[in-house]
Amino acid sequence: MPAFEHLVVLLYSTFNKMKNVSRRGFVERLGVGLGASILLPSFTAYPQRGALPYATKKLQVAVCGLGRYANLVREGLAASQYCQLAGIVTGSPTKASQWKAEYHIPEKNIYSYQTFDTILANKSIDLVYITLPNGLHKEYTLRAAKAGKHVIVEKPMALTEQDCQEMIAACQRAGVQLAVGYRLHYEPHHIELKRLGQEKVFGQVRLIEASLGYRLADIDPKDWHLNKALAGGGPLMNLGVYCVQSSRYVLGEEPVAVTAQFGPVTLPHLFTEVEESITWQLYFPSGAVCTSTATSTCNIDRFFASADSGSFELSPGLSYGPFRGKSSQGAFNFPVINQQAAQLDGIAYYLLANKPLPAHISGEEGRKDLRVLEGIYTAAKSGQKVSLR
Amino acid sequence: MPAFEHLVVLLYSTFNKMKNVSRRGFVERLGVGLGASILLPSFTAYPQRGALPYATKKLQVAVCGLGRYANLVREGLAASQYCQLAGIVTGSPTKASQWKAEYHIPEKNIYSYQTFDTILANKSIDLVYITLPNGLHKEYTLRAAKAGKHVIVEKPMALTEQDCQEMIAACQRAGVQLAVGYRLHYEPHHIELKRLGQEKVFGQVRLIEASLGYRLADIDPKDWHLNKALAGGGPLMNLGVYCVQSSRYVLGEEPVAVTAQFGPVTLPHLFTEVEESITWQLYFPSGAVCTSTATSTCNIDRFFASADSGSFELSPGLSYGPFRGKSSQGAFNFPVINQQAAQLDGIAYYLLANKPLPAHISGEEGRKDLRVLEGIYTAAKSGQKVSLR
Repeated sequence: MPAFEHLVVLLYSTFNKMKNVSRRGFVERLGVGLGASILLPSFTAYPQRGALPYATKKLQVAVCGLGRYANLVREGLAASQYCQLAGIVTGSPTKASQWKAEYHIPEKNIYSYQTFDTILANKSIDLVYITLPNGLHKEYTLRAAKAGKHVIVEKPMALTEQDCQEMIAACQRAGVQLAVGYRLHYEPHHIELKRLGQEKVFGQVRLIEASLGYRLADIDPKDWHLNKALAGGGPLMNLGVYCVQSSRYVLGEEPVAVTAQFGPVTLPHLFTEVEESITWQLYFPSGAVCTSTATSTCNIDRFFASADSGSFELSPGLSYGPFRGKSSQGAFNFPVINQQAAQLDGIAYYLLANKPLPAHISGEEGRKDLRVLEGIYTAAKSGQKVSLR
Repeated sequence: MPAFEHLVVLLYSTFNKMKNVSRRGFVERLGVGLGASILLPSFTAYPQRGALPYATKKLQVAVCGLGRYANLVREGLAASQYCQLAGIVTGSPTKASQWKAEYHIPEKNIYSYQTFDTILANKSIDLVYITLPNGLHKEYTLRAAKAGKHVIVEKPMALTEQDCQEMIAACQRAGVQLAVGYRLHYEPHHIELKRLGQEKVFGQVRLIEASLGYRLADIDPKDWHLNKALAGGGPLMNLGVYCVQSSRYVLGEEPVAVTAQFGPVTLPHLFTEVEESITWQLYFPSGAVCTSTATSTCNIDRFFASADSGSFELSPGLSYGPFRGKSSQGAFNFPVINQQAAQLDGIAYYLLANKPLPAHISGEEGRKDLRVLEGIYTAAKSGQKVSLR
């Protein structure tokens, strides 16, 4: 288990031993600063807030694309230990003014999409966090890399596996690191799912049911999620990626084949370009199967895994939670954390040390997901089982 | 809502108002006699134990096929209000002696498969409950009907829709009634699922996930469930029928198309004739989709439905429970009942009155399930979407 996740698990272990500190109190403190020594007397190996031994400053982050998700990233930055909101990239002068005033962004760190490439000369920005629509991920990753900045790109990493490969190569050439915004890799319930699956605590996992959906009946018809060029697809791209991800990291395997089916269109005035819902089945080398639905027709948010001698599940399970879950050994008792802060600190922990990012948060991980997502679409369109070997 | 189910719901309502009677006490009493007046002071419309106004005696039941399931039926008969174990049909002299001694079966009411047809002359048997392997359901239903006996046949009703049609026709010709052992129609959690779905309490149901499986790694390789001729198929036939049933009665619709996929064989020494696992997707006229897995690879037992403004779920959900569940309005609080006793009394309530059985427990309901099960197999074998119109 990589160092940062190990540390998170250790924190929860400590938390569970503390009888006199309320869970809420701990969670609130966890959100604003992991490792405050007064709360964690038995845990001394972890550095104090803002004092990584190898870091002289926080990672300076520019957020690129100020849509809804950018606000979650901003809140994560505010709660993070090793990162700081330093700049913005936006096409909206109104948003630029607003963020500048509210979050004290220096004028020199504010970019439009036209001026973005001049960020090359700005030494006060270390990393660009791309929260643009999916269809713009590739272009802005390439431009950020060319400008010498590390990149975190939101999931799905791009629209195709080929795009991902180009993004990975561009970052390698530029000597910058590329991460995908896989927040759940830093979330304690999901770290536990991964442990239960990969360490075969209940034996081999045989069947996973993982589904995520939000009813979008009231969405603005102009929302980019409904636009094929900007979104790349419907709920499979935006939600299904969590189902694919979780099945892959719980099993620790890559699927070798997929079958898939488009669901019916119940909101035809909205879903003219992208699918409204889709179901699929992933087949893994061990013989495990994962069945999933990603949908904009209704709400669903569940993860369940059945192994030889037990099962484990979360519901809510793949959204922003708060997660609830259990295994055959009993209910989970993990705190609610700021998922973006944990992810940002998990990434910064490596970047500040100039160490390579672990594979599971890297561009390579994003590429593997896109390979599967493309396979799902191919299977749904053809009605045929598609090999992913 | 048919009278008997209405009555069950009324009983629970009464139960929930009783503050001084423990739940377990109520449940035990419910198992041995619905409607004892001392327990149910506010419920007077319901007849006393054994005193249906139109019935002079209990329904006399012969159990045909003394395998594992026959013991559940026997326990149900012992706990039932309107039925009584009167006879047996078995190929095993040992079992015949054992049941005769333990359950006081008169010698004249004990039949072998060779002597079974002479039951025609036995006026002390009203109904034959067929708990034989699936592949024998048709033959023994036809023979029981010819002998002038009412029939309850366990699910799945037969191996094909055509078989079901022949069984229905034979019972009609013989002037006997034919029921399928759909115990969950009399189970309070499932009566509530049906109400929530069909009455659209949370609006239109859009997506159902219903899966049932038991890991059969340790099953006797000679068990009839592994034998194609006797079982008709693998877990789809024995477990999948519950997933199909529940989706049909929650939606109150018949599926119009199906896609399906066989799962991998992980126990190749056992699953040489029937599938080890299967996944499928049912498409309903309303646009609702039901995704399911029936498997012998691992344990799974879940039902979930998402509607426009809320969801409802059970887990355990399709087995013998005890069921646990909730809706968007909160946790369910229904008692645990003897499912076989409730089903037997539900059926006897009509047979003793010489009234036609409600459609949802009739042979016609079994036929509709077989139509879907056959469609699932056709879809899985062909890899094509199969129309059920």
